[in-house]
Amino acid sequence: MLDDRIRCAALRGKITSAADAAQLVRNGMRVGTSGFTRAGDAKAVPLEIARRAREESEPLRITLMTGASLGNDTDRILTEARALERRLPFQVDATLRRAINRGEVMFVDQHLSETVELLRDNRLGALDLAIIEAVAITETGGIVPTTSVGNSATFAALAQKVIVEINLAQPLALEGLHDIWSPAARPGRAPLPLMRVEDRVGTPCIQIAPEKIAAIVITNQPDSSSTVLPADADTALIAGHLVEFFQHEVSRGRLPKQLPPLQAGIGTIANAVLSGFAASPFEALTLYSEVLQDSTFDLFDAGKLAFASGASVTLSAKRQEQVLNDIARYRDRLVLRPQEVSNHPEVIRRLGLIAINTALEADIYGNVNSTHVGGTHMMNGIGGSGDFARNASYAVFATKSIAKDGRISSIVPMVPHCDHNEHDVDVIVTERGLANLTGLAPRERALTVIEHCAHPLYRDILRDYYRDAAALGGHTPHRLDAAFALHTRFAQTGSMLP
Amino acid sequence: MLDDRIRCAALRGKITSAADAAQLVRNGMRVGTSGFTRAGDAKAVPLEIARRAREESEPLRITLMTGASLGNDTDRILTEARALERRLPFQVDATLRRAINRGEVMFVDQHLSETVELLRDNRLGALDLAIIEAVAITETGGIVPTTSVGNSATFAALAQKVIVEINLAQPLALEGLHDIWSPAARPGRAPLPLMRVEDRVGTPCIQIAPEKIAAIVITNQPDSSSTVLPADADTALIAGHLVEFFQHEVSRGRLPKQLPPLQAGIGTIANAVLSGFAASPFEALTLYSEVLQDSTFDLFDAGKLAFASGASVTLSAKRQEQVLNDIARYRDRLVLRPQEVSNHPEVIRRLGLIAINTALEADIYGNVNSTHVGGTHMMNGIGGSGDFARNASYAVFATKSIAKDGRISSIVPMVPHCDHNEHDVDVIVTERGLANLTGLAPRERALTVIEHCAHPLYRDILRDYYRDAAALGGHTPHRLDAAFALHTRFAQTGSMLP
Repeated sequence: MLDDRIRCAALRGKITSAADAAQLVRNGMRVGTSGFTRAGDAKAVPLEIARRAREESEPLRITLMTGASLGNDTDRILTEARALERRLPFQVDATLRRAINRGEVMFVDQHLSETVELLRDNRLGALDLAIIEAVAITETGGIVPTTSVGNSATFAALAQKVIVEINLAQPLALEGLHDIWSPAARPGRAPLPLMRVEDRVGTPCIQIAPEKIAAIVITNQPDSSSTVLPADADTALIAGHLVEFFQHEVSRGRLPKQLPPLQAGIGTIANAVLSGFAASPFEALTLYSEVLQDSTFDLFDAGKLAFASGASVTLSAKRQEQVLNDIARYRDRLVLRPQEVSNHPEVIRRLGLIAINTALEADIYGNVNSTHVGGTHMMNGIGGSGDFARNASYAVFATKSIAKDGRISSIVPMVPHCDHNEHDVDVIVTERGLANLTGLAPRERALTVIEHCAHPLYRDILRDYYRDAAALGGHTPHRLDAAFALHTRFAQTGSMLP
Repeated sequence: MLDDRIRCAALRGKITSAADAAQLVRNGMRVGTSGFTRAGDAKAVPLEIARRAREESEPLRITLMTGASLGNDTDRILTEARALERRLPFQVDATLRRAINRGEVMFVDQHLSETVELLRDNRLGALDLAIIEAVAITETGGIVPTTSVGNSATFAALAQKVIVEINLAQPLALEGLHDIWSPAARPGRAPLPLMRVEDRVGTPCIQIAPEKIAAIVITNQPDSSSTVLPADADTALIAGHLVEFFQHEVSRGRLPKQLPPLQAGIGTIANAVLSGFAASPFEALTLYSEVLQDSTFDLFDAGKLAFASGASVTLSAKRQEQVLNDIARYRDRLVLRPQEVSNHPEVIRRLGLIAINTALEADIYGNVNSTHVGGTHMMNGIGGSGDFARNASYAVFATKSIAKDGRISSIVPMVPHCDHNEHDVDVIVTERGLANLTGLAPRERALTVIEHCAHPLYRDILRDYYRDAAALGGHTPHRLDAAFALHTRFAQTGSMLP
């Protein structure tokens, strides 16, 4: 029955239970697993690691590296079992988040393109074990990933031992979607030869020495579905402002009518913005992104999208069923790549991407906080937003102008944590409007961000702040004694409003 | 007499005075000039623009774009003449700085690799005029730059008209040092084919249509010399910590014995650090940097440096005379490139650079302020530090632990302006020691930065801040009500110390 899934006959003897495979893990090990934005994560062995950590008398704590976030409540279950010593480079789990914010799990919040560069250079320690979900193992022992590639290829290449989870719920038809390419070690590295979104530069599977495959576990469980909310009136306005802006850029000769490839971050706003392009006049769009969400397939179905390149496919339950059952319909317009290729600065700069990511908050000068609530508490992580924003042609950050019914303004005098600074951010957009910061000095930026992006509830507060700060002088005027007044007021009263 | 300097005979009729050439300038024009870190700047025509602005009754205010900083007091003289409406992407002049901080000149502080990308995409408006210093014009009208390339090639290509300043004080022997390469417009851009520091990928001169050359002005004036201070006890300690660190990285198998190419920022500390490598055990070093300072030639003369690639050569008066008179001695080990090549993310990532730049201040979590004194007042600009830090293999920021006899700590609880964030910064080093932040979570970073980098005068203050902040919880603990207490105390009392 598994002949088509494990085509290298010599490896069929490695099939074992998840519990037995998890016995390969020792306290203190560094473990890398597949999984990027809930897609293609290893679903069985990590839970057995958690069970061992709960049940055994000896401590079992590991460093867990992934592509990005996991589904399947894996991060919660590992956290509750106290099995996580250190976690990188991204997560979205509420329980793990609380443990990180209590200082119990050491979380290293990294640019998603950089984790495997550091591993390859031996700067994060040796990787003991990789656990990779696959649809199949080929005749030569090649591992065919499922709905994400993430960091799986490099994890498998560098780990001492590899566990493969063959997930029967992931259709074999996914084979052929992937394009596995890894840069050579430095020095002597050649250019990444990708010049168009649709270019294939690598191989369709992860080829490692088959004897490194220490165990094969059979699973049968779909990916956790996306938690993205549907578009609403505000996200539709944001999408509208952006479509209008890009039309304007085309009309001024700053962009070709055929837009450069788009990247859109994970989450509700970026997904809604992309969906908004379905009603735009733009044609033959392309995506060079990390995660392909429902919006990707909305655009395909609307006939607007010519090609999509990503590191994962993360869909709502309904879309997941439809796409996986009908993957043939999309497969010649899709490719899944390692995240160090999808997020590679070289390619992002070369293609001149339009990068659209979500801000938690932005300040009047265009600095963006993507990660830290109140400047202190980790939400998810920077993800790929830094890879894209620094090197893209247009770096757009989108947010609703207010949160919590107006008790929080997403436009503030100064961000208390800066993930993307004024040098990188080209456009801030909220449902109120859009500020194009390109070529503007900070004093000019402040005026346009306040007038175009801030909610009317907060405009006077921000105008007053800027006026008082500007009176003190400076290229980027601030009152350091009042820069966080909105944040401290919220901490004290539950609202940034006086 | 000028036959060897203007080898295209048809262009000799374009020779004119600087005053006449400056008549090409109109109010509101965008003007791009050569000049990068005081080297190779246009020396005559900009001063005539200033004279016109002072003397004429009609306003004459321009947008001035350069490679980086200018010598020759040009920025001061233009500022005093109120000839600058807008200035980008970098400057170091005290008079201009004051005008920027008063909000009188709109300064756009850009990553140095990005200015010409934006110009090429028509996002900074059309460039009306380029003024380029050259040692010669070739038979085919090619412009041979002098001691810097900077943005000159793209300025000349994009400007409607070009003025060439032939500077007889710059030796003809500079010809052949330059390697001019520009990326194609997007889409359709190919990889930048540079794979080794010494690779030449372009042409030795800036080739434009000769009829675009509207005027040629003859000058005879050396570059302004570098203002870099000699190494002192503290910079020697910083260099020592770094050499020891890189030896440690080699011994742990994280770096090859033959180090990757080094980049070092402009200024005293980076220059001193590089000079410190002369006494290190490392051999056959290479530089892939922006500005080649005295330290480059110290390393050549010490037999430590195999090759140096830069965008400019900026030397002390003594070194300038020696190097320019003896350029044959170095020329086969030197190349000068456009700054979008020297600072290109693609190449920086491919080569795996060690990037060493100067911090104005760093916070306990490894965020770096490179630009804004007190978070508000522009010092110089971010320069290339962001191009390098984001994409380098090792991003090092160096600073003395204190300034103004201890009244300022360069290690603070939170930077009031963030140019390089925790995601980009690998190493902080002061004369007190070195903090390797790779793979550390913020709480771990805080402890190592405080204990290894802060001055003993401030350690208890920083420990207390961190302890109180950590008690409040969070991934990156802060007390927003006290994050800038050191800065506001300094503003009030002249010292960060209680």
